[in-house]
Amino acid sequence: MELTSRSELEARVARLQGKLAAADDAEAVFIFQAADMFYFSGTVQDAWLVIAREGPPLMLVRRSLERARAESAFEHILPLTNPREIPKLLASHGLGRLKRVGLEFDVLPVQQYARVGRLFPTMQFVDASQLIREVRMLKSAYEVECIRRAGRIQDRIAAKLREVLKPGLTELELAAELEAEARRHGHQGFIRTRRFNLECFYGHLLSGENGTIPSWMDSPTGGTGLSPAFGAGLGTRRIRTHEPIMLDYAGGCDGYHSDQARVFSLGSLPEDMVRGHAACNAILEEVLANLRPGGKAGEVFARARAAADRLGYADRFMNTGPAQVAFVGHGVGVELDEIPYLAANSDMTIEAGMVLAVEPKIVFPGRGIVGVEDTILVTTGDPEYLTITPRELAIL
Amino acid sequence: MELTSRSELEARVARLQGKLAAADDAEAVFIFQAADMFYFSGTVQDAWLVIAREGPPLMLVRRSLERARAESAFEHILPLTNPREIPKLLASHGLGRLKRVGLEFDVLPVQQYARVGRLFPTMQFVDASQLIREVRMLKSAYEVECIRRAGRIQDRIAAKLREVLKPGLTELELAAELEAEARRHGHQGFIRTRRFNLECFYGHLLSGENGTIPSWMDSPTGGTGLSPAFGAGLGTRRIRTHEPIMLDYAGGCDGYHSDQARVFSLGSLPEDMVRGHAACNAILEEVLANLRPGGKAGEVFARARAAADRLGYADRFMNTGPAQVAFVGHGVGVELDEIPYLAANSDMTIEAGMVLAVEPKIVFPGRGIVGVEDTILVTTGDPEYLTITPRELAIL
Repeated sequence: MELTSRSELEARVARLQGKLAAADDAEAVFIFQAADMFYFSGTVQDAWLVIAREGPPLMLVRRSLERARAESAFEHILPLTNPREIPKLLASHGLGRLKRVGLEFDVLPVQQYARVGRLFPTMQFVDASQLIREVRMLKSAYEVECIRRAGRIQDRIAAKLREVLKPGLTELELAAELEAEARRHGHQGFIRTRRFNLECFYGHLLSGENGTIPSWMDSPTGGTGLSPAFGAGLGTRRIRTHEPIMLDYAGGCDGYHSDQARVFSLGSLPEDMVRGHAACNAILEEVLANLRPGGKAGEVFARARAAADRLGYADRFMNTGPAQVAFVGHGVGVELDEIPYLAANSDMTIEAGMVLAVEPKIVFPGRGIVGVEDTILVTTGDPEYLTITPRELAIL
Repeated sequence: MELTSRSELEARVARLQGKLAAADDAEAVFIFQAADMFYFSGTVQDAWLVIAREGPPLMLVRRSLERARAESAFEHILPLTNPREIPKLLASHGLGRLKRVGLEFDVLPVQQYARVGRLFPTMQFVDASQLIREVRMLKSAYEVECIRRAGRIQDRIAAKLREVLKPGLTELELAAELEAEARRHGHQGFIRTRRFNLECFYGHLLSGENGTIPSWMDSPTGGTGLSPAFGAGLGTRRIRTHEPIMLDYAGGCDGYHSDQARVFSLGSLPEDMVRGHAACNAILEEVLANLRPGGKAGEVFARARAAADRLGYADRFMNTGPAQVAFVGHGVGVELDEIPYLAANSDMTIEAGMVLAVEPKIVFPGRGIVGVEDTILVTTGDPEYLTITPRELAIL
């Protein structure tokens, strides 16, 4: 089992400490959430991870101390048997006078927050979500390799689809075969998402008009889901010939995700859908041409939308009517929904080392969706694809 | 696609309103979390669900209004385009003077909570988590049937294991086949859990000593996981003969879960493990004999532990050493981890209509785990099994 190296962890902690110092607000952060804890410590435990502006991180572990020490390269990993000991344990680590501490306000439940507050009644708490997400936004070479591995699993999923797809299969029956293949190639199964209520099981597999059914998701695609209990994604619709089948599953490996979407069809697709798919590939190229360090995320989106307009898809790009969404991509890493968003309202600056899922899609109401999605590394030169399945429409 | 009936929803809302009136604290609750929203409205949307002590519920839907109206039997489902309209929309529903409102403090992130607070700056908020969970704790006949369906999917998973298990398969390779079978029989995939950071992908499939590896989970079993990014559950260990293989996957259907664990072995198991497994079945019987309305959850656990002690497993029942956990079961429903817990510290009263997963397990350090888990309906008479796979040790 591969562990996150000491140098990798040290670089991440140093970047967080740099941001803490630069912000001159919180003196430390307490990290609780699984994805953040894994990112900064190399392990996920029932624990408090404390990172101050200076000095080595401290991890107080309720369970499992043994696993934490085996998996994390940190030196200060201590047992935690009673939460009331925490103030004293912090003090013995030189952190007895923290006045202002950052927490993951975007994911931390109110009850957990209140518990922290009761342990430190005079401490002030601030939202460290954005700062933590900004550190995570820039990927190391090691992380890029993890994402590449996830992308290779997605390529195996797509290959399996070519092998097993036939008319009359339901979306769910097809999914069963693809998901098994994903696991055979090491897919971690669980897809981590950050946004409240954003539940993802592999992703979406949508045939024909099911792709155009509206859902709660801020997404170009919808789907019935298997029941109103989830209400998005695949259902039990039978796949037919001459309609687009959108395979938009996430890869997951060693805690990292990749995001790729491809369109398949049993027999030819109607000409307008073929053109729509080609337009999405052209928009993807347009986005890549603009994914340069120093650019603005909002501007990248604006250019994608302008390309869609030019190509005649103003009303169908990234969904239709009130369901149309004003983004064309998002960061990917230890969670599927990372920053930056390539979104109309984003003023974030594109930097080398960002990994972005870019997903131009066009909706044909009542008929289906076409488009592509690729996971892309921003570099100082040309952007690099981390997902590898051919992007052409796959007529089977 | 089956919808939750109007009478079903009305009964749930009425129970919540009864509890709100009895508690005489919050005048209403605002519900945001997917599982709670599904339970009370029959649909999951990007929405505010408002239930006051009296009157019909109000649902304000950002997305998708169309789906909400199609899936929920509620009459007051209104579009929400701007959060600032919410106070006015509430007022027009006769809820303009709410002073004290309950929220799901156990799952609501601090950021969301702060947003609600900014919209209602003079409103007081209280924790409605327990109250909501108590309403959900008692299952209707309709819900019991959903859980039964989930249990039948689990039986198909167990049957598949009998069919494909052979020495040399890795846990992950076996999981691939079982998960595909689950989906072929309609498994919803996603397993909903309530506890912060509790991520569940189907559940656990643990062979030999992997079952005894400690993890972050408050659980009798652990496991390496595929990487430190998750750190619990199955890994890539190769399955051998003469060792216990614990299949502890959750069923999931129409938003409802079931929980069942069974032990399989390729060839005979060592005698002490066979005895341990028989002891778990005896402890399960002991629990069932005590699952009567009016009993206390803590007392049910105490009797299970006393039975384990009598049978000679005081040190190995529900894990060993500091990893030993003081519970033997939990509620199951629209989430996998519902109340009540059959736990040492619980003073909750057992009631007819509760559905509980009971999971006596015994750990043989470094060698494996044995035990059973069944999902059980409490009735005024004998408890009823909702999971159906034979409980005997399966020697293949």
